[in-house]
Amino acid sequence: MVRPLMFHDDRLFPAEERTRSIARELYATVRDLPIISPHGHTDPSWFASNAPFQDATDLLLAPDHYLYRMLYSQGISLDALKVRSKSGVPATDAREAWRLLAHNFHLFRGTPSWIWLNHVFSQVFGIEVFLSGETSDFYFDTINEALATDAFRPRALFDRFNIETLATTEGPHETLKHHHAIRESGWGGHVITAYRPDAVIDFEDERSGRAFERFAEVTGQDVYSWQGYLEAHRIRRGAFIDAGATSSDHGHPTAATADLADGEAEALFLSLVKGEVTAEKAELFRAQMLTEMAKMSLDDGLVMQIHPGSHRNHNAGLLDSHGRDKGADIPGQTEYVKALKPLLSKLGNDPRLSVILFTLDETSYSRELAPLAGHYPVLKLGPSWWFHDSPEGMMRFREQVTETAGFYNTVGFNDDTRAFLSIPARHDVARRVDSGFLARLVAEHRMDLVEAQELIVDLTYTLPKRAYKLDQPRLNLSSVQAAQ
Amino acid sequence: MVRPLMFHDDRLFPAEERTRSIARELYATVRDLPIISPHGHTDPSWFASNAPFQDATDLLLAPDHYLYRMLYSQGISLDALKVRSKSGVPATDAREAWRLLAHNFHLFRGTPSWIWLNHVFSQVFGIEVFLSGETSDFYFDTINEALATDAFRPRALFDRFNIETLATTEGPHETLKHHHAIRESGWGGHVITAYRPDAVIDFEDERSGRAFERFAEVTGQDVYSWQGYLEAHRIRRGAFIDAGATSSDHGHPTAATADLADGEAEALFLSLVKGEVTAEKAELFRAQMLTEMAKMSLDDGLVMQIHPGSHRNHNAGLLDSHGRDKGADIPGQTEYVKALKPLLSKLGNDPRLSVILFTLDETSYSRELAPLAGHYPVLKLGPSWWFHDSPEGMMRFREQVTETAGFYNTVGFNDDTRAFLSIPARHDVARRVDSGFLARLVAEHRMDLVEAQELIVDLTYTLPKRAYKLDQPRLNLSSVQAAQ
Amino acid sequence: MVRPLMFHDDRLFPAEERTRSIARELYATVRDLPIISPHGHTDPSWFASNAPFQDATDLLLAPDHYLYRMLYSQGISLDALKVRSKSGVPATDAREAWRLLAHNFHLFRGTPSWIWLNHVFSQVFGIEVFLSGETSDFYFDTINEALATDAFRPRALFDRFNIETLATTEGPHETLKHHHAIRESGWGGHVITAYRPDAVIDFEDERSGRAFERFAEVTGQDVYSWQGYLEAHRIRRGAFIDAGATSSDHGHPTAATADLADGEAEALFLSLVKGEVTAEKAELFRAQMLTEMAKMSLDDGLVMQIHPGSHRNHNAGLLDSHGRDKGADIPGQTEYVKALKPLLSKLGNDPRLSVILFTLDETSYSRELAPLAGHYPVLKLGPSWWFHDSPEGMMRFREQVTETAGFYNTVGFNDDTRAFLSIPARHDVARRVDSGFLARLVAEHRMDLVEAQELIVDLTYTLPKRAYKLDQPRLNLSSVQAAQ
Repeated sequence: MVRPLMFHDDRLFPAEERTRSIARELYATVRDLPIISPHGHTDPSWFASNAPFQDATDLLLAPDHYLYRMLYSQGISLDALKVRSKSGVPATDAREAWRLLAHNFHLFRGTPSWIWLNHVFSQVFGIEVFLSGETSDFYFDTINEALATDAFRPRALFDRFNIETLATTEGPHETLKHHHAIRESGWGGHVITAYRPDAVIDFEDERSGRAFERFAEVTGQDVYSWQGYLEAHRIRRGAFIDAGATSSDHGHPTAATADLADGEAEALFLSLVKGEVTAEKAELFRAQMLTEMAKMSLDDGLVMQIHPGSHRNHNAGLLDSHGRDKGADIPGQTEYVKALKPLLSKLGNDPRLSVILFTLDETSYSRELAPLAGHYPVLKLGPSWWFHDSPEGMMRFREQVTETAGFYNTVGFNDDTRAFLSIPARHDVARRVDSGFLARLVAEHRMDLVEAQELIVDLTYTLPKRAYKLDQPRLNLSSVQAAQ
Repeated sequence: MVRPLMFHDDRLFPAEERTRSIARELYATVRDLPIISPHGHTDPSWFASNAPFQDATDLLLAPDHYLYRMLYSQGISLDALKVRSKSGVPATDAREAWRLLAHNFHLFRGTPSWIWLNHVFSQVFGIEVFLSGETSDFYFDTINEALATDAFRPRALFDRFNIETLATTEGPHETLKHHHAIRESGWGGHVITAYRPDAVIDFEDERSGRAFERFAEVTGQDVYSWQGYLEAHRIRRGAFIDAGATSSDHGHPTAATADLADGEAEALFLSLVKGEVTAEKAELFRAQMLTEMAKMSLDDGLVMQIHPGSHRNHNAGLLDSHGRDKGADIPGQTEYVKALKPLLSKLGNDPRLSVILFTLDETSYSRELAPLAGHYPVLKLGPSWWFHDSPEGMMRFREQVTETAGFYNTVGFNDDTRAFLSIPARHDVARRVDSGFLARLVAEHRMDLVEAQELIVDLTYTLPKRAYKLDQPRLNLSSVQAAQ
Repeated sequence: MVRPLMFHDDRLFPAEERTRSIARELYATVRDLPIISPHGHTDPSWFASNAPFQDATDLLLAPDHYLYRMLYSQGISLDALKVRSKSGVPATDAREAWRLLAHNFHLFRGTPSWIWLNHVFSQVFGIEVFLSGETSDFYFDTINEALATDAFRPRALFDRFNIETLATTEGPHETLKHHHAIRESGWGGHVITAYRPDAVIDFEDERSGRAFERFAEVTGQDVYSWQGYLEAHRIRRGAFIDAGATSSDHGHPTAATADLADGEAEALFLSLVKGEVTAEKAELFRAQMLTEMAKMSLDDGLVMQIHPGSHRNHNAGLLDSHGRDKGADIPGQTEYVKALKPLLSKLGNDPRLSVILFTLDETSYSRELAPLAGHYPVLKLGPSWWFHDSPEGMMRFREQVTETAGFYNTVGFNDDTRAFLSIPARHDVARRVDSGFLARLVAEHRMDLVEAQELIVDLTYTLPKRAYKLDQPRLNLSSVQAAQ
């Protein structure tokens, strides 16, 4: 039976009426604020070329690891979902792949994907029936027809979504040509990049050899010498700042940092470059590079983001057939207090440095991260991340972090997504959950309403702009460059 | 002062009225569904002999570690509670032991035992006053009188409790004679077994020597050779399947798995058999045996249950005087991501395998277990377990697991109990807590009511039957056997 | 704009009306009960001299690490807050320091400091406007005027706060002269001490050398011999008992305990005394000393408190400039199950011993601490502590501990504070949060109202008195002494 897709105005607010009515009031003040998206993984070529998106499966299903990991967990093959493997994109019919999602949409009950997709369906495409086997083809056709119109091209959606700033993420060996094209196009959308040097820092990543080659090409440095390698980083950081970057991003297996003597760091680097790679040495080098990046930030002002704690590509069979990043990354225990000590002992009190910490290990919220951020001037906490970018996850973050770190040692919401159409949905969830959390504090007389009204604006808009230095005149960034 | 025992119809539902009324509606649809109990520890001899239970203390107090561990923690001796020690059952007067429970019933405030016992008292025995020092003798007499009647014999209670399937747990060295007797009795109760081979897998268990001897006797194999040992497992798994088993159960200290080469596994086994037991070797052998059991499951279809993470018999003095399993098992940190990698690398994508994971370490819910189960086709999550088989524990399980793993990578409720009379109470708690959790999602417009209505039935009935293969024609099981 | 400071009668109660009205009723029964503060860090010289407090900054800001750590985390220097450094108290104007707090009071939104301070401001000083830049000077003057009056001298506040017993904490090398002065003064306030021997147990503490010297002086023992060292502890424990102590307190980095043979313990001690200090040996000695202290408790009856799990003085730069205890202590993962095994194997069932466990690692609540306390007769759980001494922290403690350990294996609330004026605020928060927790259990029909009414009194008053042996005739304590 076809049933309506109802997307209620009170969604995600606490059921209790006293609290709900406060939440409604708080949310109303931020509902229409522009979106600040300082950390994400959309493809800048979309905005450079402004070509129409292909179809529902290609846009919404095949690239979204939240969707295909759940379907895969229930025995559905990635090929049937048209997910790219090492042999390329499967020949699967896109409509058939979409039907698999539709028939199995019940698997997403209780997950954030249910909320995000229904938001996209109802708010972006105006669909009014619920996704199911019966409505699958209607969805597929409706979405495809819309995507063929100019109103659904990337730049039009960017404007419609009221995005003030959108950051993508690129490697140090990448050319940033799409960002240059966007800037030169005359389109007013503020799309910036972020500096993610993992590929030339992690000697355990099988792609590092090729990345080093391109890192050398693009910088003209001898990246196999320690000084040349560091200089190449400085050059690229400058180029990224030129393309609007205000932050670097570091996705390491652990939060380990190190502070080796210069000679030791160089010897370690040269040994790794020679191919003498062990797990211990690779880990120590990643640790040392966080400190090196922090030192460069003293000069160029890039905000550091540290995203540790994922066991990447855990599924050996799938890595073999489909390669990396296929929904098989699994979080593990992550320690911060000892791990960050070397970096913090060196730079923890330096007003020029700003480090944003993320975690996949929620046990660190109240035990380690809130106490660290509630003390060290250089530290702030990123929002609940990845698996925890969800209503319950966001609420646990606020409940477990706030009492020790307060709100002002956090940085507002990051969507961290490659699913462009879900960006308004994700920010809307964050605004609603934060409204609900603040409403409870007000209802329990633990905060005044006037304070909550200020806070909801800060959490939505002010804090992300400040934390990512998007509130500073862009002139500053150019002058940093000029000095290089 | 004697006060009434009130067992409210709305118990365990959220207090907020909007949510409570939805919870009521959801619960009403599953309140009278049959009980599926696919994992538990009741004594099959009860149903084989159908002899009346002895008395209140013998049935409800002395064997229930939840009760006597709490009383012991407050300084009451196990002898005074008539708990069996190494010297046998103490001569303590049963009525006096019961009085100790009654006088100290306040200790159970806020614990699930309060709910379970009051359910048993009011719903099974029809008692209408609260347990206290004053009502102790009234309780003792009332319960004993009831137990002496035919209506309170094991089979009558089984039928009255509306149990569709009840699984017990036996070791590979045990004869299953009670299961055979039940089957031959003509009584229609579906009591099945589960294969729990720990006693012949854990060389650190002081009982393993005797278990090996009986394992050899019952299988006729040379269980001290590697091939004979594996063959003996295959034989017994077949015999257990013949007695209705659809699952094996593995209660290891950790979740470690291994995938040794054949020669290495054999060498390790032979070394252990020779008595060369170290903690490391015993651990590696348990790890390897999880993989061996998984390989056998590919052929015979037994669902694997892995229950890790308990430091057994932590209290040295009590182990000395009273032996194992006296309420002194304490959970510890449990790691899954690295631990399960060898097994998952070998078999994680094999559609013939199904593994149900349990934990005593709630920190693994959102960090490790939900991400693993939300990806690997072979994995499902068992319900909140043992210390966490409680309203708050169940709610944390749903809140921390659902957003990443969804509902359909979970397996419904297991009571896991040896307290037969508490089975309806425990299933009722699970149905109520799940109704409350779903009601909140509906009230917060994160799920439609029609979806919640389907889900509450799935969580209560469909998922446990499917996960434990109790929804398959039993013919299948026979044909598996015939093929051996 | 100046806005009113409203401190609502329903603060901290759940918003849902059914639950809130029960919470109100429960709270009303304990609102005016005397304060039992069996663990804290106020300065006994205040009560000995009864001199007026200096000013708002000196009393409320400069010594409160909750306040200055948050301000420091946002880039405000400790000097500007008049926090003592190694060079002494900065010359900063007290009024200017106070203005920094006032201007930045928004940083404390959502933290317990907001509640505690607003309680102090409104309930102790009668202020009716909210703290802000505009009201800063009004606050500073109002508070200072009050402090100059007799009604705000330490003893007057002690009486006004309705404190029945207040424990301070002293080291074994300290003279207890203030406690003697209080006793001899004829004032009726019951101020007792607690025995905290860390300074002569932790060879990694740079203060231990001087502490040993004074330990020798004050006891007349050869504290560099093992027997003399143990005897010195016995002597001082006796002296502390004479000054009212009923407990010892142990703030170790971990919960490790050890049970070495006599010769081994002595050899370890002598090696450390000789200066052969390694991290491993220092840790083993601390571990052994917990067992030695427990053995002494069998004789003299002191309740042991174990407070593990803090990485002290994490900020290297700040330790250098400002010394210890400047808000830079960061919790870490803390293991209890293996750590406590040696002590529990020796004494875990001894009715003469009582050990109260605290944690900064909330993951241990449901996994380790509740199962341990719900079994071992010697163990009880201290309340949520330090960073977790907050509404959310207290609620998580009850939610995660109660189902396994019950209420009666906990010890009620400890304020653990050096901020004397915040004591009523902190106890009020605990009473309100406990009332809210119990109210939810009643509203969900998981507990009868009559049980909740008994419990709220027990949690507030009965349990702390019993756990800290404050319910025993003081005569007993004297007779213990007489026997020495």
